[in-house]
This record gives sequence, C-alpha cells and structure tokens, in this order.
Amino acid sequence: MREFIVYTHGVTGLFRLDDLPGAGRMDLIARCVSNAIFISDATRRDVKVYIVLNGPPNPPKTVIFDAARIKRTSPDERNIASHIRIALEKLGDRREVESEPGITIKKLGFKELIEEKIRKQQVIYMHPKGRNIRNFEFQPKFAAIIGDHKGLPREVEEYLKRIGVETVSIGKIEYFASQVITIIHYELDSRNNV
Amino acid sequence: MREFIVYTHGVTGLFRLDDLPGAGRMDLIARCVSNAIFISDATRRDVKVYIVLNGPPNPPKTVIFDAARIKRTSPDERNIASHIRIALEKLGDRREVESEPGITIKKLGFKELIEEKIRKQQVIYMHPKGRNIRNFEFQPKFAAIIGDHKGLPREVEEYLKRIGVETVSIGKIEYFASQVITIIHYELDSRNNV
Repeated sequence: MREFIVYTHGVTGLFRLDDLPGAGRMDLIARCVSNAIFISDATRRDVKVYIVLNGPPNPPKTVIFDAARIKRTSPDERNIASHIRIALEKLGDRREVESEPGITIKKLGFKELIEEKIRKQQVIYMHPKGRNIRNFEFQPKFAAIIGDHKGLPREVEEYLKRIGVETVSIGKIEYFASQVITIIHYELDSRNNV
Repeated sequence: MREFIVYTHGVTGLFRLDDLPGAGRMDLIARCVSNAIFISDATRRDVKVYIVLNGPPNPPKTVIFDAARIKRTSPDERNIASHIRIALEKLGDRREVESEPGITIKKLGFKELIEEKIRKQQVIYMHPKGRNIRNFEFQPKFAAIIGDHKGLPREVEEYLKRIGVETVSIGKIEYFASQVITIIHYELDSRNNV
C-alpha cells in the first residue's frame, strides 16, 4: 500500500471550478491525486491519497481518495476538483462523511493524521535534504508526506523531526508535489521490475 | 536542450475550456506541457515541447512551447489549454504564426517534424520495449517522442523504426505521457546531480 499525505493550502469552503489556482492551488492538489491514482487507461489499486486542506474558511479538513474503490473519477484537474468540492459540500458541519464511493472527508488536521499513521506504518517526509531515495528501504506499507508549493510550516517540520519521521530525497530540485508522487511511484515500480 | 514531441489526438479547432477531455484529451496535453516546463515555482529553461495535434477538423497542426521565452503561462491545465486555443485561433489559414511570446503554431505534421529533427539531433521514441533509460546515453540536445493515451498508429511506429529512431524504456508500466516527461526530467536531473 502506497500512501501519500499532501499538506496543502487548499480552501475548505466551496470554490469555483473555473478558477482552481485561486482556490488555494486546487489545480496542484488535483494533479497530486491524478498522479497518485492514475496511469494510462488504468487505476492503481493499492494507493490512498490524503489531501490535508489548510486554507480558509474552516481548516483543517482532510479528503481521502482510496484508489481501489473510487468510481467516475478521471485524471483531469476539473474532474478531481469537482469530487473535492462535492466532499466539502457534503461534510457540512459533520465530523466525517463518505461523500462518494472511495472518497471520504474528515474534520481532521495534519498532526492528528500523522499521529494516527505513525502508530501503524512507516511514515517518511519528502525533502531535498533527506536520504537518497535510491538507497532507501520502503516498507510494504508506507505513507509519504509531501508539501505543496508553499511547503510545510517550519513548526510542522520541527514536529515531524521531533517524532522521528525520516526524510527522503529525490534530489536537489524542488519538484511540484504532483511530480514527486510520480517519481516515488516510478522508483518503486522500477524496483518491482513491473 | 531537452525536447519533447507528443503525438496527440488533440483537436485542431476551437474547443471549450470547460471540457478539456472532450477536446481530444486536451487535459492530458496540458499536463504534458506543464510537466515539461514547470517545477515548483520555477520554469525550466532549456526545454521545448512540440504538441502535434491530429484531431479534427483540420489536422495536423503543431504547437511549440519554448520554455525560455514563454510569459503569463501557469502550470494548471486550463491556463495551458487557453494558450493552445489562442494559438489555434490566431493560426487561421496561415502556415505559421507566433501566437504569443514563446508559443508558435505551424501547419506541420508529425513525419515532417521528425524528418526536420533527425537531421539535427538525437531523436528517441519512448516505449515500454525499448532500452532501459538508466543505461541510455542521452546527447546534450535530444528530442523524445511520446504517444498520448491512444499511442502512435502502427504505421507511424513502423516509420520511426525504418528511419532508425532508437526506443528507450522507463519500464513495463504504461504511464501517462505527462508522467513519462516527469520521469525523463528526473532521470537526467539525477545524473546531473542538481
């Protein structure tokens, strides 16, 4: 199981599908989901994506895509963003709701999510100064934390360090979060020689 | 100079920005341009992308993005598609026009483009059955041919073989064209240790 946790500045209220960049870079968020889940004409199975939304008006909220169970989702930004919008709409004042098959939204923040994950599986943080990915041993079930275009706040980075989350690097270039996801998949696909 | 030539089924007439998938998968095309040109908060310099449009109503047309010269272009699908739309609109009945800084459109087909390229530089075709990219020697200036979700017609693949274009592989998985571009960049970035 490959899990991706993206710390974003995406908005937590309804937004216009015609202006995804203006919604806390919902375009970038959609591309993360797209690259995590889809390859050409196929859906990866053992993948979950956690999109932590820290933007206004009611942060935090976390939208979870379970690749094995989603339906009617396609890889274009507008489609994926529309599913996030539906999730935000259905959540309303509740704590948690499955908005569509394989898509869940929770009133859940980044640290709570990480605390939950770290008890159960390997958690890593993708950062240019981390250990080189080619020498890094991934466990069969892992969660990789990735920052959006603004990155993680320093205080959050310090929190990850304090709780012992290892950092892993794919080089000195600051790729988009969505590109980082593609590269992690590719590195692991190459090892599996599939 | 890293050049990418994407053989697509994108439409050659005006299309609606609200339905990019319906325009011969203009969403996929936009993601190719995005991943070729952009990294987080930066534009790569030595990159050109050739989008060969083979869809209706007046194929073929080729839109060329020169990363070093583009302006007011952002990495979201809608923005990139809007520049392709402007290019199509400005071309009209002409043979060639620079529609915006760094964006040119030509009434040019795939084979003509390849014939022009192969006289001047290394040309490779990305295919799962090709030589492993990790052992492949890229020349400083190369052009990588990539198919869209439908791939290249058999007749076009045979043409490439006949003229001696080498095939290069990033594994058995059929990634999206946009993901192939990210992976080529990453492989070369890793070699340069930047």
